[in-house]
Amino acid sequence: MRTVKVERLTKAEFAPFGDVIEKEGVENFKINDGRCTRYHDLAHVEIAGPQPRALVNIFESTPVSFPYELRMVERHPFGSQAFVPLSDRPFLVIVCEDEGAVPVRPRAFVTAPGQGINFFRNTWHGVLTPLEAVSDFVVVDRGGEGNNLEEYFFDEPYCVVEG
Amino acid sequence: MRTVKVERLTKAEFAPFGDVIEKEGVENFKINDGRCTRYHDLAHVEIAGPQPRALVNIFESTPVSFPYELRMVERHPFGSQAFVPLSDRPFLVIVCEDEGAVPVRPRAFVTAPGQGINFFRNTWHGVLTPLEAVSDFVVVDRGGEGNNLEEYFFDEPYCVVEG
Repeated sequence: MRTVKVERLTKAEFAPFGDVIEKEGVENFKINDGRCTRYHDLAHVEIAGPQPRALVNIFESTPVSFPYELRMVERHPFGSQAFVPLSDRPFLVIVCEDEGAVPVRPRAFVTAPGQGINFFRNTWHGVLTPLEAVSDFVVVDRGGEGNNLEEYFFDEPYCVVEG
Repeated sequence: MRTVKVERLTKAEFAPFGDVIEKEGVENFKINDGRCTRYHDLAHVEIAGPQPRALVNIFESTPVSFPYELRMVERHPFGSQAFVPLSDRPFLVIVCEDEGAVPVRPRAFVTAPGQGINFFRNTWHGVLTPLEAVSDFVVVDRGGEGNNLEEYFFDEPYCVVEG
């Protein structure tokens, strides 16, 4: 089985696939008479397709562990999808490049506490995979008409292992 | 000084002002082969005005304590604003009705763990007021052109006290 080694999630490495949503190293300014710091505009939210609208959801997902067998990825042609964990536990973020509508060269990242992510529109990615325990996430994605989900099942799964 | 007693936050009481973002009592369904529960579309996100776009931000705010002196409220004519705490600590949510562009009859709610809120567009509300400790929130609001902030300073402050 082909293996994929996990990497630490950083803005630089994740840039082709989406945003890292975190306070570190981003534009911020004081509001509310200096009592609050606004870490501003951390994700490229895209809401397209017929009758689009931004959704706020909570996802509650069972965890996975290593080695993790990656059998499929998906993408959303009409919108981005942001995941911010409501805990300090890490989660696994899997993305692929696209080659003629086929997902190729999977990469797997592990988050640090305080990191969320936003997948760009139409970026191949794995399903939500928290580590360690059942975990809740606030999810910002796209609602509306039309089919916003494309799935791809690999002929041969990948095996995602710790780096 | 006029006093406002805090109330427990519930969907029913908060309905005129916005959404309670929580898993309890909402539409949900299984995704990802049954491994994940999607608590779906928990907020009426409104993104209007010139060149509008949805923003995802993190707000880090110092806490307040009781009695809390409410001197001002604000509203956003072009968009809703959602706050989901990244901790289990409670926060204080203050809203007012509107009477001819004047905020009246303030109400103050305290959240339970697992509750966030979304203020409807143009709803008068207090600034972000966590309780107990410095707290982070994921915030979904509106970016774009035009002035999206209106503030109102009361002639006489209100005193928000525990119920």
